[in-house]
This record gives sequence, C-alpha cells and structure tokens, in this order.
Amino acid sequence: MTDLPRVQAPEQMIHLGLGQPSRGLLPGGLLERASAELFARQDESFLPYGPARGNPGVRERLAGFLSDQVTVAPDQLMITNGNSQALDMICTLFTRPGDTILVEAPTYFLALRIFSDHGLTMIPVPTDENGLVPGALEEILKTCSPAFLYTIPFYHNPSAVTLSAERQEAVARISGTHGLPVVSDEVYRFLYFDQPPPPSLGRFHSQCPVLSLGSFSKILAPGLRLGWIHTSPETLKKITGSGLLRSGGGVNPFTSAIVDRVVRNGSLAAHIAELRDVYRRRAAVLCGELREALPRSVSFTPPRGGYFVWLRFPEGVDCKALRKTVQKHGVDFYPGSYFSPDRGFASYMRLSFAMYDEAELAEGVTRLGRALKQALPGLYKGSR
Amino acid sequence: MTDLPRVQAPEQMIHLGLGQPSRGLLPGGLLERASAELFARQDESFLPYGPARGNPGVRERLAGFLSDQVTVAPDQLMITNGNSQALDMICTLFTRPGDTILVEAPTYFLALRIFSDHGLTMIPVPTDENGLVPGALEEILKTCSPAFLYTIPFYHNPSAVTLSAERQEAVARISGTHGLPVVSDEVYRFLYFDQPPPPSLGRFHSQCPVLSLGSFSKILAPGLRLGWIHTSPETLKKITGSGLLRSGGGVNPFTSAIVDRVVRNGSLAAHIAELRDVYRRRAAVLCGELREALPRSVSFTPPRGGYFVWLRFPEGVDCKALRKTVQKHGVDFYPGSYFSPDRGFASYMRLSFAMYDEAELAEGVTRLGRALKQALPGLYKGSR
Repeated sequence: MTDLPRVQAPEQMIHLGLGQPSRGLLPGGLLERASAELFARQDESFLPYGPARGNPGVRERLAGFLSDQVTVAPDQLMITNGNSQALDMICTLFTRPGDTILVEAPTYFLALRIFSDHGLTMIPVPTDENGLVPGALEEILKTCSPAFLYTIPFYHNPSAVTLSAERQEAVARISGTHGLPVVSDEVYRFLYFDQPPPPSLGRFHSQCPVLSLGSFSKILAPGLRLGWIHTSPETLKKITGSGLLRSGGGVNPFTSAIVDRVVRNGSLAAHIAELRDVYRRRAAVLCGELREALPRSVSFTPPRGGYFVWLRFPEGVDCKALRKTVQKHGVDFYPGSYFSPDRGFASYMRLSFAMYDEAELAEGVTRLGRALKQALPGLYKGSR
Repeated sequence: MTDLPRVQAPEQMIHLGLGQPSRGLLPGGLLERASAELFARQDESFLPYGPARGNPGVRERLAGFLSDQVTVAPDQLMITNGNSQALDMICTLFTRPGDTILVEAPTYFLALRIFSDHGLTMIPVPTDENGLVPGALEEILKTCSPAFLYTIPFYHNPSAVTLSAERQEAVARISGTHGLPVVSDEVYRFLYFDQPPPPSLGRFHSQCPVLSLGSFSKILAPGLRLGWIHTSPETLKKITGSGLLRSGGGVNPFTSAIVDRVVRNGSLAAHIAELRDVYRRRAAVLCGELREALPRSVSFTPPRGGYFVWLRFPEGVDCKALRKTVQKHGVDFYPGSYFSPDRGFASYMRLSFAMYDEAELAEGVTRLGRALKQALPGLYKGSR
C-alpha cells in the first residue's frame, strides 16, 4: 500500500479495480493545520481513556456536520475506527456464529470476509437500478429471521446504484414490522456529483432498528481509521456497554480530536466539495472512454456519485477468466464474482475512478479495450 | 473521562481504584513535536489504507525498541488499536461462542467482559506470589481443551505479581506440549521500578503458540489506542488474513506514524524513564501510608512495577459491602470480586497509584483508614 501504482511507463499496471483515493487527493496539509491547532490549545483531554461513545464536543460538531438534510443529535452518534471495525463490532455484539444475515446481491466483497470470520450465513437479496428490492426482502423474511440486513444505500459498492427515497421508506417499514436490524454502510454518501442523494437511513432510528455507518475514509483519508455510527441512543447503549469499549474507552480519542479541528475550521466541507468535483470529472472521462472502447453488448449505468462503474458483459462471459489476459495488457479490474457470497455476477466487472487521474483512466481503458478485443473478439463483431 | 477527579476539597472523591495515568503524566508536548516532525517530511504514506500488519518502517523501529533483552524482528510484529482491541480480534479469529478459555485468578476485570461478549466460558487458573501456577495449569489441561490461556505476566492487574523466569519457561513448555495458545497481556512490562522483569513471553513464539500483546496506553497515552502483537509470522498471517484487516487495512496508520516519530527521536525512552521514577515514588508513598493506616491483619506485597497494590483482608470481610461506607469518606477502590469470573476474591481490594500524586495518595489512604475504622472496628483492636 505504501507504493501505490502510478503510471510512468506503459508497462506499469493501472489497477482499475482498486477503490482507494489517489495520493494527490489526500489531505496532508489539512491534517497538519488541524494538528497544530489542536496542540496549540494545550487541551490534553484527548490523551487519557475517552468516553465510550467518543468525546461529547467531537460528537456535537459531527452532529452539526451531519445535519444537512435532517437533524442529527450528538446522543445518536458514536465514534468508530471506520466502517470495517464498526461492522466487526456489530457482528460480535449482535450475532452468533451460525446466524443468518442478509446482504445485497451484489455487495462489498470484504464485508463478506468480515461476516464469514464471524461464522455468519449470508443470504443475498436482489437489487436493481434503484437499489435493494423491498418486495424481494419481504419474501425472504417469510422464510428466515436474520440477525440483520447489510445494505450500501448510496453509490453502491460495486453497483453504483442508490436506494431511492421511496425504497428507503419501504425498507424502514419492513425493518420496523419485522424487528429486522438494518446495518447501513453509507461510506460514499457525501460523494455525490450533482444532486445530493436522499438523506441517511439513520433518520429512521426512532421507528426501526437501523444503524447508519459513516466514515472519514472516503472524504478525508483511509489511514485515519475514523468513522461513526448514527443510531438510537438505546442501540448505542448496547454497543458502549461492550467489554471492548468498557476496557479501551472511546476507540480513537486522539485522531478524532485532530479530525474535529478539520470539521470546525471548515476545511472538511471545502475538501469534500473539491473531491466531488474531481470525481465527477474522472467518472465522466472513465465512462466516455468506456463507451468508445467497449463493445455495444457491454452495458453500464454512469454513476451519480461514489467510486465505481459496474460493467455488465453478455451472459456467459466469465470475467474472472479474462483477468490474466487483461493483466498482460497492463491493466486490472475486480471480477463481479468477488461481490457475492455465492459467486454470482460472473459476467460483471468493477472499475473505480478514484485512484487515477483523467489521463491515467483514459490510458487504462485503452489497454482494457485492447485486451478485450484479443480475449473476446466475437463481442466486437458488428460493434463500432 | 474528560473530567478526571482532582483533589481540591476534602469532599472531592479520590478514586484509588482507577488504573489510569494522571493528567500531568500525559505527553502532549512529545506528541506535538512528533506530529510537527511527521508533517514537515511531506511524506503522506500514512494517509491511504495501510498494510495489514502496519507500516514496515514503523514495525522496524518498534522491533528495535522492543529488542531490549531479546531480539524482536519486524516480521514478528503487527500494529493494533491497543490491547482491548487485540483481545477482541483474537477472540473473533481464534474462538467460537461456547469455547472454553483459561484466565488467571484473579484477572483484569474488563478482559472478562470482552471474553463474555464473545460467549466464552472462563476457567480460572490459580496464581501465587510468582504468578500463574504451572502445576495447576497442567492439572486443568487434563480435563479440557481451552481455546487459549489469557495471562498478565508482568506487574499483574490486579495482583501486581510477576511471572518468574522459571515459570515463564514452564508455561511455554506446557503451551508447546498441549498446543495451547497463550495470550500474554504485557501492558505494564516497561513500568518496572528497579530491575527489569524477565523478557516478554513473545520470545517463545518459535517453540509454542504465544501472542504477546503490548501497548502505548501505559507508556505514552491511552487515548492513542495503539499497541502491537508480537508472535510468529505464521500466527500473524492468520490475523492479517481476516476480513477486518483485508477491508480496513492496518488498524491505525495515522497514529502509528506519529508515535513512530516519538520512538525515533528518543523521547519515548526518556518518557518511560520518567514514568518509572514517578510511579516508584508514588508506590512507595502509597505502601508507606497503607502500612500506617491499615490494621495489621490486612496484608499486601509492595509492587515492583505497574499500577497496582492488591490488599488482602481477613477472610470473611466482604470488600464490596464496604464500598458505600468508604465512598462516604471521599475515597473509592475496586472490590476484589470484580477480578474473577466466579466472584472470588471478595476479601481483596485493588488500589492504584497511577492517577494521583503523592499528596493525593496520602490523603486518599487517610480517608480509607478512617472509613475502615468505622466499618470494621474489630480489625483495629490490638492493632497499632
């Protein structure tokens, strides 16, 4: 990770699968200023063990920051070490090995690994261009009582779709009726290109058991390992009563005190605005180049935010099997089969526009097109 | 936690139970200098997702720091979010609910909470003034196959005892013979007063499955949530292959890059030397005052390091029942029953000298003596 690939020579790999921000977008300067501000105050309240939910002041500012479309109160928030750790903690506290959980089809592949470490059985719920399909969810709930539903409602990883406001309400209603906890991974919510998406699912916390997980990984820096859970104070009590938090206290008092300065001095909002702009342009370049380079039978919906483009190849194409050939052309991707517990989506491919600049993305797609022409010549017949 | 009690008026509580460093010992200045050094380098390698085991350079310097009595190699180390998180992670990866583990009697009470969150059954192993009793461990292993043994071999919490070098070897031998993983919580190892204790149990990693857990919480600041695991590269592979680390990367790249500067510029070693000096003097004051204030039938062994003094009252005294009376006198403690899964050690009391200065400790013991005279007048008959 310390040596992220950069394009210097044609033979250097452009890994379009990786969902990470590029180096130039990392906010070293903001964090330098924030750290200096923090230490200048001679307030060392972030050095002892901290409160389990996180420092009250930090949560107050975070609540203000999150109160964009709906009001978020500080007592509905706790600070986490990022969404991976939050998912791990929720599995420990809310499940037992052998339990069933519901995941979207497709879903974030490394979340599947976390669930599998906890011995959970995963049942996929269908999605379409508006996200999770509520009717399908209701059908599945007739046959099982899952410990929770894991959903990525905004600029989905990998499919880039967003759960519509109507469907959000349907999911909340189903969750309330069945007492089904909803673990909502909202890591891409702030990265919209034009119009903001519907508000966080966290706003339903008083009518159904929903835990909204947010993170600074995509809007500041992954290396901070800092995020938050937005849910009801009652649900938070269950988490903060855990042995882990009783013993260690708040999970990241030091880093959260520094990031708090980034929130307070306004540089977070400015940084996110810049990211939106950069990613909007990169997504446009990636999609434009893909339309040129791919055969007509490969389809995708241009994303409206987030990190990803989800390519659908004609049925029967096994993207994983293409990977070696594609890699030989100096480019890489993640095959769709990674993104489901039952290895479905074999004819899909995840690309990301987060880690490379516009020129690198264009070069990557040129290479991909070259590789596909070699590997799947049949698809190009009659196409452009 | 943000308002730690300080002694200003006699009626203000002195909580001798709390095992936390006092505010004056927190290294804000060191961290300010370290952060400035880090940002001045314009090296932002700590901002993306980091390698699962932690940054190689950080592990190299840490290995150097840990190679005090025996050599520690960087590939035997991974960075953690502190020992509570490391324990939690080990439970997730190495146990399943219903499994049995072994803990010392007594043991760290909040570790018990973590184990209980993971649905583990805890069997206590007897200890004496030299720590865990190997013969007793062997007896217990005749009747069960525990997932691991949790031990605190240096300046034990709460009993302050240290596992002797001979016993360390016996435990390693038993671990190797039975394939019993040993999870060794070594958070107090650097806080010796005079002679260093035996080396870390981590040195046995090639002959038995031992995981030594270290932390910056007691030698720098708990709010950093930073520590390490020292074990065999093979065992590390199992941990770093977990979904949590595959998804989130290294658990604290940002904070570890700052603490790395504290290690490199030598201020960590100087800070630890200062802590040893302060705690040695505080322990001497606490023990001296206790000898004056307590009845002769209450015994304790003066600690040679760490944070704690473990008071043994005559059998039949229920320390938990004393707590209300003692609190009325403006002082508090942790009753011994907290420190075992079966509520043993009812006639013990844990005190700490970490959080208060010498005058405050003396005042605390005066209040404790006053309270005990009122609550247990019988113990004082014939005594001083």
